Amino acid sequence: MTDESKVGESRRAFLRGTVAAGAGLVAGTTAARAATPDPLITEIQDYASSTGDAVDAVPYGMPIKYENHVVRGYVEWLTESPISSINFTPIHALEGTITPQGCAFERHHSGAIEMTKGEYRLMINGLVDTPLVFTFEDLMRFPRRTMTAFCECAANGGMEWGGAQLEGCQYTQGMIHNMEYTGVMLKDLLAEAGVQPEGKWIYAEGHDASSNGRSMPLEKAMDDVMVAFFANGEALRKEHGYPVRLVVPGFEGNMWVKWLRRIGVYHAAVESREETSKYTDLMPDGKARKWTWVMDAKSVITSPSPQAPIRHGSGPLVITGLAWSGHGKITRVDISVDGGKTWAPARLAGEPQSKALTRFHYDMNWDGSEMIIMSRAIDETGYVQPTKDQLRAIRGTNNVYHNNSIQPWWVHANGEVENVEIA
Amino acid sequence: MTDESKVGESRRAFLRGTVAAGAGLVAGTTAARAATPDPLITEIQDYASSTGDAVDAVPYGMPIKYENHVVRGYVEWLTESPISSINFTPIHALEGTITPQGCAFERHHSGAIEMTKGEYRLMINGLVDTPLVFTFEDLMRFPRRTMTAFCECAANGGMEWGGAQLEGCQYTQGMIHNMEYTGVMLKDLLAEAGVQPEGKWIYAEGHDASSNGRSMPLEKAMDDVMVAFFANGEALRKEHGYPVRLVVPGFEGNMWVKWLRRIGVYHAAVESREETSKYTDLMPDGKARKWTWVMDAKSVITSPSPQAPIRHGSGPLVITGLAWSGHGKITRVDISVDGGKTWAPARLAGEPQSKALTRFHYDMNWDGSEMIIMSRAIDETGYVQPTKDQLRAIRGTNNVYHNNSIQPWWVHANGEVENVEIA
Repeated sequence: MTDESKVGESRRAFLRGTVAAGAGLVAGTTAARAATPDPLITEIQDYASSTGDAVDAVPYGMPIKYENHVVRGYVEWLTESPISSINFTPIHALEGTITPQGCAFERHHSGAIEMTKGEYRLMINGLVDTPLVFTFEDLMRFPRRTMTAFCECAANGGMEWGGAQLEGCQYTQGMIHNMEYTGVMLKDLLAEAGVQPEGKWIYAEGHDASSNGRSMPLEKAMDDVMVAFFANGEALRKEHGYPVRLVVPGFEGNMWVKWLRRIGVYHAAVESREETSKYTDLMPDGKARKWTWVMDAKSVITSPSPQAPIRHGSGPLVITGLAWSGHGKITRVDISVDGGKTWAPARLAGEPQSKALTRFHYDMNWDGSEMIIMSRAIDETGYVQPTKDQLRAIRGTNNVYHNNSIQPWWVHANGEVENVEIA
Repeated sequence: MTDESKVGESRRAFLRGTVAAGAGLVAGTTAARAATPDPLITEIQDYASSTGDAVDAVPYGMPIKYENHVVRGYVEWLTESPISSINFTPIHALEGTITPQGCAFERHHSGAIEMTKGEYRLMINGLVDTPLVFTFEDLMRFPRRTMTAFCECAANGGMEWGGAQLEGCQYTQGMIHNMEYTGVMLKDLLAEAGVQPEGKWIYAEGHDASSNGRSMPLEKAMDDVMVAFFANGEALRKEHGYPVRLVVPGFEGNMWVKWLRRIGVYHAAVESREETSKYTDLMPDGKARKWTWVMDAKSVITSPSPQAPIRHGSGPLVITGLAWSGHGKITRVDISVDGGKTWAPARLAGEPQSKALTRFHYDMNWDGSEMIIMSRAIDETGYVQPTKDQLRAIRGTNNVYHNNSIQPWWVHANGEVENVEIA
């Protein structure tokens, strides 16, 4: 476990040390500063002697230009076309638990379409007493709910199944985002239509050309599934399904149908393309395991990581990352800095929410030698995030989806970080 | 209180009614739809027969063009220059509790300045054992915390003190935002410098030219004040103090110093311009009440409101709004639809957090006649949001700051909403 007093001691040493080292860091007594004056303190800067941007300059703001590397990433060779592909959240550079919509990963099956609220229609049909069609305005008249939930692509980490491959947690674990959604509960809309006793499954599909339809048991639809129109306080962005998407807490992202067009109620699953040839798990015996909707507990250290190396040398180091579980709340995250030999609990930021991202921090003193760092999530069901070998022992090596194994990072003495695989 | 069963009954009536009325709403049985086919359902639309935007189209997204009215508003006549002025969060069009950074209100005293992380320095001096200067990288090495807090300008609602004046809650109550912040605790930095026993106050000031410095008791600084660098998961935007701002939960926005430059520790308050000639309350006897830092409990109905009129006619209506208290958690919000004669509790969305915005909803059936709607917040101290007259009885009519009174909206029979004042 972190020895807080030792961290404090070492930090004071690093604050003193940095002056002598002549690094970019300036700290210490007034006398020390006088010996090496820092013009950023002793000279009046432009930004302190003139005025800045007016409040009517930008009605809707963007991140400052110095942060323009914190953007979604796209890996060209991963898919045949960017129309049916994915991009990645820059999780290595984010903090807290909320993912801004502007940099939250996207997955499209035929591109992000553009429709107006006026054009929008949602149909509920199949085994219902009264087939219904809702306009956007109709939906806004139902009781609203707010919830925070993570959306993770089933293929998140999929490229790593066979071995360490991509450099940076943005690409190995960045098919995830976490937003505060507001909308209406699907169960309220289904109640309006009146589900008939034979109705046991629903089938959700989008307005886009992809026919990305997914089935789910009626129990889930009547539990916590939301028909959402706001994310992080404002309207859904175009790439996240404007004006209406499905939010299916804990379930794989493919089921969070965007530009939601229709909910059909049926006696059985539809067995569509996306739930037979895709989004199933190829087991060692050649059979496909299907209906693997719930995303198991997982975590990743976002910094330090290959895209976020240590640039400050030895001394106090903040290790931070994200943990989540489709089965409920994260109860603990353990950290290892010795490749899994010993573990110590991380601090969880705030009260963990069910089926939402939880931020963790681990404060340590780094002695400057190489380490292999790992995080391990535990959820309220008692489930412990497995190693890659543990996962392979059960699921074989032919898989693409549902890789929730522990991610080790190799921290070199020079602070560079590499994606590695250990037993 | 809302009669849920009655709402359900009326909603079914409205769903049936809308077909007959031939409005934009389409609902009912298949037969009913067949009689008046909706081409948005029966015809294949462009967005369903072609592909949309690729995942490499926009590395950092913006809201869809159809939402370009949901932006910060600026009232030209309010101040002499937009350099030292304010703009307003479009709270009438937002939902949930998080305010996106891009449309969160700004208040500058000399404009939003632009500085790099490399240029950034934070000095702690005054009555400390070791004066210290931190670079941005130094700050990133201290233990990090995450918290959600509202930031409200002391002048929020100030124009309404003398009477109903502005149309739209964006302008009457929109000097507020609510974000998830990550940073380090000021108490940890102060501990590093070592506060001397005579140090009883701190003074915080920014890097910009305005010299907007504010004093606060050491107790607050050692409690929950944060030196923040992330908001809603990503770096602070330029207009919110990039790279570092102060977060002072529950206290008026002016104290949340942006582009934070220096924390001085002193035996007494500095009594700067912004805490003597400004940000004090002019009482009926001509004296100025100062140190009115904590924002009292307040709420506002964001929809319906003058900028968000009712366009759907009578039947189910969702009333929604925001409540907050600088003293802790919101425990209840009451709604009146008869100008304050009777009140009924609203639903609070999620678990209210201390010193953060709480969303409330109230589901009702509107019979189409005019109403005067109001919300009233109650916080965990038992404090009840006052009427404007109750506030004036204590604080007189010369004030600008700290108007936390109840906001009535007059809903006309045609659904238009007007800002009114009632006893």
